[in-house]
Amino acid sequence: MMLSIKRAASTTVRSITSSISSPTFTRNLHASGGRKKIVGVFYKGNEYASQNPNFVGCVEGALGIREWLESQGHEYIVTDDKEGLNSVLEKHLPDLHVLISTPFHPAYVTAERIKKAKNLELLLTAGIGSDHIDLNAAAAAGLTVAEVTGSNVVSVAEDELMRILILVRNFLPGYHQAVSGEWNVAGIAHRAYDLEGKTIGTVGAGRIGRLLLQRLKPFNCNLLYHDRLQLDPELENQLGAKYEEDLDAMLPKCDVLVINTPLTDKTRGLFDKNRISKCKKGVLIVNNARGAIMDTQAVADASSNGHIAGYSGDVWFPQPAPKDHPWRYMPNHAMTPHISGTTIDAQLRYAAGVKDMLERHFKGEDFPEQHYIVKEGQLASQYR
Amino acid sequence: MMLSIKRAASTTVRSITSSISSPTFTRNLHASGGRKKIVGVFYKGNEYASQNPNFVGCVEGALGIREWLESQGHEYIVTDDKEGLNSVLEKHLPDLHVLISTPFHPAYVTAERIKKAKNLELLLTAGIGSDHIDLNAAAAAGLTVAEVTGSNVVSVAEDELMRILILVRNFLPGYHQAVSGEWNVAGIAHRAYDLEGKTIGTVGAGRIGRLLLQRLKPFNCNLLYHDRLQLDPELENQLGAKYEEDLDAMLPKCDVLVINTPLTDKTRGLFDKNRISKCKKGVLIVNNARGAIMDTQAVADASSNGHIAGYSGDVWFPQPAPKDHPWRYMPNHAMTPHISGTTIDAQLRYAAGVKDMLERHFKGEDFPEQHYIVKEGQLASQYR
Repeated sequence: MMLSIKRAASTTVRSITSSISSPTFTRNLHASGGRKKIVGVFYKGNEYASQNPNFVGCVEGALGIREWLESQGHEYIVTDDKEGLNSVLEKHLPDLHVLISTPFHPAYVTAERIKKAKNLELLLTAGIGSDHIDLNAAAAAGLTVAEVTGSNVVSVAEDELMRILILVRNFLPGYHQAVSGEWNVAGIAHRAYDLEGKTIGTVGAGRIGRLLLQRLKPFNCNLLYHDRLQLDPELENQLGAKYEEDLDAMLPKCDVLVINTPLTDKTRGLFDKNRISKCKKGVLIVNNARGAIMDTQAVADASSNGHIAGYSGDVWFPQPAPKDHPWRYMPNHAMTPHISGTTIDAQLRYAAGVKDMLERHFKGEDFPEQHYIVKEGQLASQYR
Repeated sequence: MMLSIKRAASTTVRSITSSISSPTFTRNLHASGGRKKIVGVFYKGNEYASQNPNFVGCVEGALGIREWLESQGHEYIVTDDKEGLNSVLEKHLPDLHVLISTPFHPAYVTAERIKKAKNLELLLTAGIGSDHIDLNAAAAAGLTVAEVTGSNVVSVAEDELMRILILVRNFLPGYHQAVSGEWNVAGIAHRAYDLEGKTIGTVGAGRIGRLLLQRLKPFNCNLLYHDRLQLDPELENQLGAKYEEDLDAMLPKCDVLVINTPLTDKTRGLFDKNRISKCKKGVLIVNNARGAIMDTQAVADASSNGHIAGYSGDVWFPQPAPKDHPWRYMPNHAMTPHISGTTIDAQLRYAAGVKDMLERHFKGEDFPEQHYIVKEGQLASQYR
């Protein structure tokens, strides 16, 4: 797999590099010219860092932008140490200008931290999502918050389809048998199904939800989606999905439910005990959106009593998930750490996106509009 | 999931039942009217047998045809005991008329066993495949061998796509972390990729291969297929796949290779050390076709030295796979027992297909042409 990717990477890096013009710094609302202190908070690569030249998303890879940043005179601190008052992040808060983080190992940016970061101008998400940032506090402080919209939507949608299949087809008990020397087809087959003909509902039909629906289409399922607004009829027809205005009316219809909505004040805890009880008994749930959309204990309880027949996702709250997080131990789960949006392909895309935004920031240029979450103190419309 | 399936099942059973006319037995080449002894060899359901009313594929479920067979005066023996001279199967060989088995727990029918089965008329596969039968010996004895063609092609194709995603996206190391209390995104992400943009080649583009290609289409991959004959240009265009006449020329192009060819004298051991060495270093291989298409040790060796970066399938040789089968222990595998074609949905379809063929056999009627592997001593054209 690696060779073709390597070529793609060098192309990406070259095209980005070639678009760098002479470093003429102008002033943004908060931007000041000259030397900037940039802090990146990523997950550690450790022994894996050197195993793949395209593994740019880890601390050691540092998004592949160290040389470029330093050649322009900027300071670039990269760490995974992000919690508590003695962390590396906390130490650099008072004088950093830009903070880059990822959803996979998020630097939680509270109102208190924003207050402490007197020089902070820009918060960038290498990936998608900003729920690790107190957006109201960031807006009040006049900051800009932006993500690399679209950088990993395909990655996440593919991963969701994988998880749907893993649950519907009851893959893991079979794998456990293979490893442990067993052979008991019945132990798998008595609850393994085809995806064909089942009803799949997505809660949210934004970019990821739509990419998932596209990929589900050839499976001949009944596809439903719930969102605030109905999609354009032509797109709806293309996707072959039916609109469900009322979430609670959709739930009892679905064999499989996929969560594709951002975490906001409205979606936090959306799937509590009451809402889960409205789902079909034996429902399978896939959630690569955000862990806090679910009530943690309600999911664990419904998995234990069989109301949820399988739960798979890569998002938890908090992250990293503690060793005693109940989702690690509930029956019929197919959980992983937060990885779906950080494939090598996605890393190359969001690294390029971060570099592009930094470059624009240094020049005082605007970002692509869809990347803004908070633009110079103003929340983007979908977050208001 | 269960409720909607239950309804489907009772519909299937009803429609099959209603098509039974009065039992007027006529004589086939080998068929004789009156009471028949039918032996079914399936996997045991044990404690799982009672957990799902549609779990008809196990010994206890007995394809859901016991009542029907016995009401017509036939004897119906069902067992999972199939190996050796003291097995239940061996005991019934001398006087059975029909032997039903499945690829998931195959009754190996050797020339010796055929010789011993003096009354044998018909060998049915509940599912697809007949490589557990010595077809030349069966033909020489004037027998009929048939399968339920198409009964689980969707089931297998879905399962293949799941396995492709599991390997490409490096799912299992993440799952192991979730279970063991770890959180090490790097350990997963350094070798996790998007499926998008990768080159997928299928060795064989029969019914399953084509269904897989259909399902792969929205993933925006480069799709290749090798087969004896090129597909119709219109179908090829629909699938978006490119024909590769020379297998060995296709191999070095593929990031992922999927085996979709039946096991025949020509394909047995097709992927030996030499052929595997022609694949791209780091190739991912999915094989839900038959285990014996691969050289077992060559796959294990190439997985150990990294030439194969991941191997997933549900077929082994022999089956059940012994506890010390090297594929259970090689690195980066995602193996399961043979299950992809025995989902609950597939079981209901192949049970209905077996019932239909038995009914036709008792009446002296022909089967649907595509179900024949050996028809009254003549090998079907694709097996010659």
